[in-house]
Amino acid sequence: MKNAPLPVIEPPKFDPRSDAPLQINAPLVADWLVRFLQEEVTLRRGFQNVVLGLSGGVDSSLVAYLCAKAFGPEHVYGIRMPYKLSSQESLDHAQLVADDLKIHCHTIEITGAVDGYLESFEPDVSPARRGNVCARTRMLILFDQSAKLNALPIGTGNKSERLFGYFTWHADDSPPVNPLGDLFKTQVWQLAHYMGVPKVIVEKPASADLIVGQTDEGDFGISYPRADRILHFLLQGYAPKRLETMGFLTEEVALVKKRLDSTHWKRHLPTTAMLSTTAIGEYYLRPVDY
Amino acid sequence: MKNAPLPVIEPPKFDPRSDAPLQINAPLVADWLVRFLQEEVTLRRGFQNVVLGLSGGVDSSLVAYLCAKAFGPEHVYGIRMPYKLSSQESLDHAQLVADDLKIHCHTIEITGAVDGYLESFEPDVSPARRGNVCARTRMLILFDQSAKLNALPIGTGNKSERLFGYFTWHADDSPPVNPLGDLFKTQVWQLAHYMGVPKVIVEKPASADLIVGQTDEGDFGISYPRADRILHFLLQGYAPKRLETMGFLTEEVALVKKRLDSTHWKRHLPTTAMLSTTAIGEYYLRPVDY
Repeated sequence: MKNAPLPVIEPPKFDPRSDAPLQINAPLVADWLVRFLQEEVTLRRGFQNVVLGLSGGVDSSLVAYLCAKAFGPEHVYGIRMPYKLSSQESLDHAQLVADDLKIHCHTIEITGAVDGYLESFEPDVSPARRGNVCARTRMLILFDQSAKLNALPIGTGNKSERLFGYFTWHADDSPPVNPLGDLFKTQVWQLAHYMGVPKVIVEKPASADLIVGQTDEGDFGISYPRADRILHFLLQGYAPKRLETMGFLTEEVALVKKRLDSTHWKRHLPTTAMLSTTAIGEYYLRPVDY
Repeated sequence: MKNAPLPVIEPPKFDPRSDAPLQINAPLVADWLVRFLQEEVTLRRGFQNVVLGLSGGVDSSLVAYLCAKAFGPEHVYGIRMPYKLSSQESLDHAQLVADDLKIHCHTIEITGAVDGYLESFEPDVSPARRGNVCARTRMLILFDQSAKLNALPIGTGNKSERLFGYFTWHADDSPPVNPLGDLFKTQVWQLAHYMGVPKVIVEKPASADLIVGQTDEGDFGISYPRADRILHFLLQGYAPKRLETMGFLTEEVALVKKRLDSTHWKRHLPTTAMLSTTAIGEYYLRPVDY
């Protein structure tokens, strides 16, 4: 007897413009992130203070609001680290956050450090390389301020930029604790609105502010709402063909998938030659690693 | 009926001063590491050139010898990055390696970049903080030179310093490929002798050269041969008590174990709040992650 034909499963009806899969319960998420911060920073690591770079963008602003709630504003240090090409608007928005929350706000100009290398050795550097030098200089200053203030650095990278590899490796991704890493950018916006981050910050176009006039979405060639929806389904294991059946544009799915695939290495520790049966992170594992 | 008493297993006779467990087959290890480098750099990542910081120490010197063998000296860029407090001997030893191998050797003084931050904002910084700023500045320059030269950065951190957490986080540990990460320092010495690294480099006391007069072993309070043997057994799961039975000193075992336990976080990616069933590195896994 032959097997009966497999039943055909219709893909669910879905409007690709719907935000439904990306909607979060903002009060619940805010509460969980405040507890996450308290647990990781104070209980597990024994720190009373935190330090973060305040760029004036929505990610670091939101983290400042979460930290002020978790630790009290007197335990939060925001550091503004402008380069000579940074916009005044970014600085003003960072100040707006600091004033609203009453957290500490220090300003450390990075131009001397960055140009101390670039002007002498690489005067004709490309804007992309200059941007990476700036990002890594901010990281080293943040860690140094951490040592000075006895404050743990808090990360601000969101899930969209982590999946797109849209960050400087060993810079934005380096602080030991990150509350936003599993939130897509569109979810960051929802949470920022709920937490009271000033509208002018939440609603401006996202930009790394490393290159004048640059915006994230201009660099990507796709908007965050469209990219986030595609990422959401790709990460759940949906094949690109299936996404097209659901109504997503072939070229946008391909663009997102290419970014995702080509940047996987940035979400990893370095590759180390294994030579023993006690290689770190491979055989030498502790309970926290399982 | 009662269970029979468990048989007593005698610990194996072992001379704690014996180097036997740390002996490597140097020709075999050298051959495997050359193939590892070729596979990771050229086959997997498509790079023809590599770049590394040449400190004049044994680790980076050994990596230069391995890279010259793997890629040919014309594809290897050594970068000397002295700070105003660095020793002339370190610079000379780096030059010795470059001359012997006929690899490219560039010199980029980091004093302008480091002091561009420290002199203006943190003139009274401690030597330890200054050392970390130097290490991270070298990292950002190495990555920038990587972009300029189209050359992959190669790491030089060994297993002993990784296990002791004796490195600057997001600095020495940041290059994407590391051939030495599973070799204890005493094994690095063996391999360096075999590869022909100049004796004056292999036999000098190991130092990070971040603070004048500083040596690794002075910082640790134990020599590398003694520490490596204890690490070897701890990583295999031997309890401290068992090591004492074997003849290791109680206080040395405790010292090594404390270093090992307290630095585990440095061998990890940052902790990210999980908020979905597609969290990066937790649920969103690709074949390379298993």
